[in-house]
Amino acid sequence: MTSVFSPLRWESGVLFLIDQLRLPREELWIPCRDEVEVADAIRRMVVRGAPAIGCAAAFGVALAARRLVAQGAGSPAFEQGVRKAIDQLASTRPTAVNLFWALNEMRSACQGPPENAARALEERAMAIWKDDVDRCLKIGQAGAELIPDGATILTHCNAGALATGGYGTALGVIRAARDAGKRIRVLADETRPFLQGARLTAWELARDKIDVTLIPDVAAAWLMRNGQVSCVVVGADRIAANGDVANKIGTYPLALAAREHQVPFFVAAPFSTVDPSTPDGDAIPIEERQGGEVTQIAEIQIAPQGVAARNPAFDVTPARLVSAIVTEQGVYRPPYDFR
Amino acid sequence: MTSVFSPLRWESGVLFLIDQLRLPREELWIPCRDEVEVADAIRRMVVRGAPAIGCAAAFGVALAARRLVAQGAGSPAFEQGVRKAIDQLASTRPTAVNLFWALNEMRSACQGPPENAARALEERAMAIWKDDVDRCLKIGQAGAELIPDGATILTHCNAGALATGGYGTALGVIRAARDAGKRIRVLADETRPFLQGARLTAWELARDKIDVTLIPDVAAAWLMRNGQVSCVVVGADRIAANGDVANKIGTYPLALAAREHQVPFFVAAPFSTVDPSTPDGDAIPIEERQGGEVTQIAEIQIAPQGVAARNPAFDVTPARLVSAIVTEQGVYRPPYDFR
Repeated sequence: MTSVFSPLRWESGVLFLIDQLRLPREELWIPCRDEVEVADAIRRMVVRGAPAIGCAAAFGVALAARRLVAQGAGSPAFEQGVRKAIDQLASTRPTAVNLFWALNEMRSACQGPPENAARALEERAMAIWKDDVDRCLKIGQAGAELIPDGATILTHCNAGALATGGYGTALGVIRAARDAGKRIRVLADETRPFLQGARLTAWELARDKIDVTLIPDVAAAWLMRNGQVSCVVVGADRIAANGDVANKIGTYPLALAAREHQVPFFVAAPFSTVDPSTPDGDAIPIEERQGGEVTQIAEIQIAPQGVAARNPAFDVTPARLVSAIVTEQGVYRPPYDFR
Repeated sequence: MTSVFSPLRWESGVLFLIDQLRLPREELWIPCRDEVEVADAIRRMVVRGAPAIGCAAAFGVALAARRLVAQGAGSPAFEQGVRKAIDQLASTRPTAVNLFWALNEMRSACQGPPENAARALEERAMAIWKDDVDRCLKIGQAGAELIPDGATILTHCNAGALATGGYGTALGVIRAARDAGKRIRVLADETRPFLQGARLTAWELARDKIDVTLIPDVAAAWLMRNGQVSCVVVGADRIAANGDVANKIGTYPLALAAREHQVPFFVAAPFSTVDPSTPDGDAIPIEERQGGEVTQIAEIQIAPQGVAARNPAFDVTPARLVSAIVTEQGVYRPPYDFR
């Protein structure tokens, strides 16, 4: 994973996360030494993006196992401690299914006496991370075929290297299209309220010398209306069995505008984002975050003191608005059937 | 106009404008002593909102006339000076038609020898202002009929007292519904990039004790999808002869989402917003503002340094998405015919 930028680093039993709250102003790496620090980083969105959350949570379990071994925990205490860590990490954020998928992987890797189990858990976390990057590279290759030469690609939020083990899903498709020699331009939705587009997508694309222009979320429909968008590529936090896609709030109105203007609307995500136990979008729990993320920007109060705010973090785009779903297993087209 | 809050004040030949760049943090009144200061205030958006811009520009012409008389200008120099002031004020912002309408009114009021003409211009500016408030009160009354008791009304940008001579257009409808005894709640889109919703609409509704909740623009479609919006009411900067509506960027995607969810979509504006010389939306010039309004919030850089940004200030909602247009002359329904 040397050539691919990753938002995580694992160094002698410490997980370092690039602080995505501080980007693009500074590149600060936050050390996490146990599952509590990892859970806190996920909750505060130091690390965000469904696949990256899954990777970080896996290392959170590995850190818990290490700590338990260092404390000399016997088998029952060890297993109980690991289970508790898994529950704690599972309670951080409700919508992204990759988190639960990664924690399940870790649960099944917890085998044998504590020292062996701790080693196995660390190896499984490393594998989840490495596999995630491999998957992103494959998603990129599969998705690049959908991008015409000369395309202007609109993306929302950050489904990039920062949101994954590395390389990215939606931005992986964009990187792979560029690497295949296609001339492309990117329009990045700023993505209120958390500004992942302005802060993260613009940062990582500029860093990769990909032509990127920032737009307010509200401008996307108008640019489509004026023929200035060739296609939309976004990530996903959970995909229901019928193809309904939960993704960052603001994805759904983009999909409505894309349909209105016959702009292809693509979703790029690892196959683990598909949740066969979720029949459709109505069954996906949608996280509602604190209103303070809306009333303040960079700790500056923009709204009058005391005004109430709603802050749903995700929305659901119905499958009928999605032109294709790109996974490491290839490109799915409607009607969606992932079996 | 004693009981209606207005963003302008006219005191012994000085126009005071409440600084809408500083709200809600402080209430600062900026004095404008000539047309240059008024033009600058319009361009910088110290005063904004189509009808308020029209009122301010009218006083800008009156201030120019006062100055020319004080300088002892003879008839030809006076008339030339007034014409120049009108041109200067007309060049501040391109989209709102009320600006050009108000300046035309002022042009036709410039009659007779300088002193008489200056007095007539001041009187005409006062009349434009007073008439604007009267129109807003009538718009409110006509529009309140459309609002059901118990409604949750979504609004975008600020089409309120601050955007008009006073009382507001879209917010005038909301005020009139409340004053008619209806129980209503308002969802205010924050309205990136300039945050008129977060800064101004939330401020003026809270000041009037109307129940207001702020939402990110990107959340509107999802709240409609969940049945949490009864209707949308917005203002307009220009209405074409066919009923196409130019309004703050982000209005068009709201209208798309409203249609998808059978949520009535209402536009409230003075009849002077209808421009019979503009056949349809394609003929409306759309202002593109500086990218810095997108990359910075409250003077804090949110995007990486040097990243490009698009910043179209308005979009056009096609007439077919508009359920009704409320003016002081009553409620128009599609197909729109304003003759």
